[in-house]
Amino acid sequence: MPAPEKFTSFIDENADSFIQRLKEAVAIPSVSGDPKHRPDVFKMGSWLQSQLESLGVHTKSVDLGKHIMDGQELQLPQAIFGRIGDDPKKKTILIYGHYDVQPANKSDGWDTEPFTLIVDNDTGRLIGRGSTDDKGPILGWLNVLQAHKDLGLELPVNLRFCFEGMEESGSEGLDELISSEAAKGKAGWFGGVDAVCISDNYWLNTRTPCLTYGLRGLAYFKVTVSGPARDLHSGAFGRAVHEPMTDLVILMSKLVAPDGKILVPGVDEMVSAASEEERKIYDKLDYSIKDIEESVGAPIALSSDKAAVLMGRMRYPSLSLHGIEGAFYGAGAKTVIPASVAGKFSIRLVPPQTPEAVEPLVETYLLSEFKKLNSKNKLKVENLHGGKPWVADYKHWNYQAGIKATEAVYKRTPDLTREGGSIPVTLTFAESLGVNVLLLPMGRGDDGAHSTNEKLDRSNFIEGSKLLGTYLYEVGAITA
Amino acid sequence: MPAPEKFTSFIDENADSFIQRLKEAVAIPSVSGDPKHRPDVFKMGSWLQSQLESLGVHTKSVDLGKHIMDGQELQLPQAIFGRIGDDPKKKTILIYGHYDVQPANKSDGWDTEPFTLIVDNDTGRLIGRGSTDDKGPILGWLNVLQAHKDLGLELPVNLRFCFEGMEESGSEGLDELISSEAAKGKAGWFGGVDAVCISDNYWLNTRTPCLTYGLRGLAYFKVTVSGPARDLHSGAFGRAVHEPMTDLVILMSKLVAPDGKILVPGVDEMVSAASEEERKIYDKLDYSIKDIEESVGAPIALSSDKAAVLMGRMRYPSLSLHGIEGAFYGAGAKTVIPASVAGKFSIRLVPPQTPEAVEPLVETYLLSEFKKLNSKNKLKVENLHGGKPWVADYKHWNYQAGIKATEAVYKRTPDLTREGGSIPVTLTFAESLGVNVLLLPMGRGDDGAHSTNEKLDRSNFIEGSKLLGTYLYEVGAITA
Ligand SMILES: [Zn+2]
Ligand SMILES: [Zn+2]
Ligand SMILES: [Zn+2]
Ligand SMILES: [Zn+2]
Repeated sequence: MPAPEKFTSFIDENADSFIQRLKEAVAIPSVSGDPKHRPDVFKMGSWLQSQLESLGVHTKSVDLGKHIMDGQELQLPQAIFGRIGDDPKKKTILIYGHYDVQPANKSDGWDTEPFTLIVDNDTGRLIGRGSTDDKGPILGWLNVLQAHKDLGLELPVNLRFCFEGMEESGSEGLDELISSEAAKGKAGWFGGVDAVCISDNYWLNTRTPCLTYGLRGLAYFKVTVSGPARDLHSGAFGRAVHEPMTDLVILMSKLVAPDGKILVPGVDEMVSAASEEERKIYDKLDYSIKDIEESVGAPIALSSDKAAVLMGRMRYPSLSLHGIEGAFYGAGAKTVIPASVAGKFSIRLVPPQTPEAVEPLVETYLLSEFKKLNSKNKLKVENLHGGKPWVADYKHWNYQAGIKATEAVYKRTPDLTREGGSIPVTLTFAESLGVNVLLLPMGRGDDGAHSTNEKLDRSNFIEGSKLLGTYLYEVGAITA
Repeated sequence: MPAPEKFTSFIDENADSFIQRLKEAVAIPSVSGDPKHRPDVFKMGSWLQSQLESLGVHTKSVDLGKHIMDGQELQLPQAIFGRIGDDPKKKTILIYGHYDVQPANKSDGWDTEPFTLIVDNDTGRLIGRGSTDDKGPILGWLNVLQAHKDLGLELPVNLRFCFEGMEESGSEGLDELISSEAAKGKAGWFGGVDAVCISDNYWLNTRTPCLTYGLRGLAYFKVTVSGPARDLHSGAFGRAVHEPMTDLVILMSKLVAPDGKILVPGVDEMVSAASEEERKIYDKLDYSIKDIEESVGAPIALSSDKAAVLMGRMRYPSLSLHGIEGAFYGAGAKTVIPASVAGKFSIRLVPPQTPEAVEPLVETYLLSEFKKLNSKNKLKVENLHGGKPWVADYKHWNYQAGIKATEAVYKRTPDLTREGGSIPVTLTFAESLGVNVLLLPMGRGDDGAHSTNEKLDRSNFIEGSKLLGTYLYEVGAITA
């Protein structure tokens, strides 16, 4: 059951006013990671809450308490719960989004003022911080509500909303809130939720809509080698003492091969190889080596086989070396033997891997490799943080609704993708509510969510609003 | 011919006034590396020049032009030339020293105000920035001149002085000045110089005076691996592209073994192994594994064989990994794939090694190791700077005079040492004047020249002043 014709027409006819509303939202610099913008985050939360109320949504602002940032105690931005519709015959869909944004300054290299939404008619782009991450998608839902209110149309599903203002800064307090609210069962704001829909990621490319059913997890490590009590001069002590950097660099060189293979025994082995059939899924995705080369700006893909590159990103674990704390990092030439150096690396996890399963493998391996060095320095291995991977059943009606809606709006079948990064709230919803979660992106792969000149294509905003509404109709048509 | 009894008595009797003069010198914060202290460096130069003049030395302040520091154009501190005595029957000794100091702030961890000389009668220490590096030794020469002037004694040699105010900041302009002055031959300030004496290093330990006849050279390298056009997110691109950090860390791991062996083919091999006889020199030095462990603050000596540790520091090359530019270096956990990373490392050189001979070995090796990685990233190897090693003939009369003077003052034979670091001006004097250079240290191995709580023992200042004067008498007694 596609959405009624008058719904999609309404979206087209009101495109300019929807863009005007996005402009209002972008103009509030709700940067959660900068204490001086904290009042703007609150302002953005209030703005969003009053928009929802004016569209007939019953809302509640939830106090998440205080936290410390840059040494200051600050009030956490409110979470905003919303509910509209209570028809027991309808399905209930929970929508998540975040109203905070990444930092942005013109001096970072923006071509325009980041908090002034620019409508570039030549390229069809809406340029501004938050346009695609995640104000555009949130406003997509408002557009759907607006259409139904103004047209006097009944919503095809019951809706619940959960919006937060700290996503870009670790979603502090949200996990606990979701768990405790879920624990209330029917009496809670998430009572009766049948499935979740999140629009906070991107198409794999710039051409083909997608649905995302998997995210990698993470295990982040810090491996510290310490020797002398203080930094030494390499003239006075080079070749006289065990140097921590020598040991650390050898250890780090034994973690991952240049071709991406993880050298920690047992880590790659936890993941079964893709069958020929599964491989075909990746072969069919609208993606090319050229796409990845364009997005990283250099011809450095690990393989010329597109499926291999996509599987490396989506369905295999990866290990990246991020850097070294405590060593010389400046420009120029300093002849120091650093006293204590800490290598930072992380492993992206895929099912059935978990941080708990991977950590002991890493620790055991590093200890045994360090022993081989016969060094008198000291080794310490720490796990800084971690998160489980997530994969959803894409044969679930929630995904089928997303697929049908995409076909109706974009006249093509969406790609089914997994992402290499993590969106931790996805797993929180899946686990605490025990329901299917669909990631239904609005923007394109080149939107530059955390970069300068972040944009959302006008067509993605408008067709994306239709997509979100149509998805609700497809959910409403499910008979199962 | 030891110094006359009344010279040494004079030094003892005037110790307090010499310490008072050192206090005056330390009170001028002549930090050459900090633009805001540049006027103090000039003040210190003027102070020193007027001291020399008042002691009968004919001086000249030499303008070294301007340079750029921290983006500001600054006048370089003056070099100060001096001459006293022109007796063709006497030998002529050139004295070098530097009147600038390292930065120091109480907040760095000093127990006392760094620019107030503290006379600690309990420990016998004179504590303050520059006390041992290099104001104490310079003032040792002033003490010698003072004694001769006040006692009406004739100096046993002709003296020439060359003092600079930029040693702690790269001795800018000095090499050119020395070369051009040396090129003037007899007409120049260095005309007729028979040998050079520099007091700007330290005993190997806290017990035994030493003479230093060798310094290691240096070849400093930067090896850059570049891949993507910008930093990438490890979630989105881990195991999809060649990561520069992976490649760089593997390359850096192939430079030096945990036991200090240099893995670049041909570098260690340039240096012949020590004969049993040469080994005995190191066996005899007053030094123990405990000494090195105390000075680095941890039991991390590469060997339990004292001669092996000393040779590693003095007569073998070493390779130290200093750090990585461009990678994540902060605290915490950042999931970045850095776009371009540059490893910094340096090789301390010993004869017959030269930067010119070592550089192509390093470059060829890194290129060939990089090729083995089959990476699509780009490699660049640069040599940032370098300097030749220096070894003097310790059988030369200049050293014999130093040995006899030490025996006369300290009643013991000095250790003959080489140092692991470099004092570039040593090589400049040796090469441009073609004469023997003696390094005759005043301070002890635990003085902490560039650290907090820098000190010079009172006894080293006073006995050291006698040593410098006695050395001149021993030179004067040379008949060769
Ligand atoms: Zn987002
Ligand atoms: Zn984001
Ligand atoms: Zn010095
Ligand atoms: Zn110094």
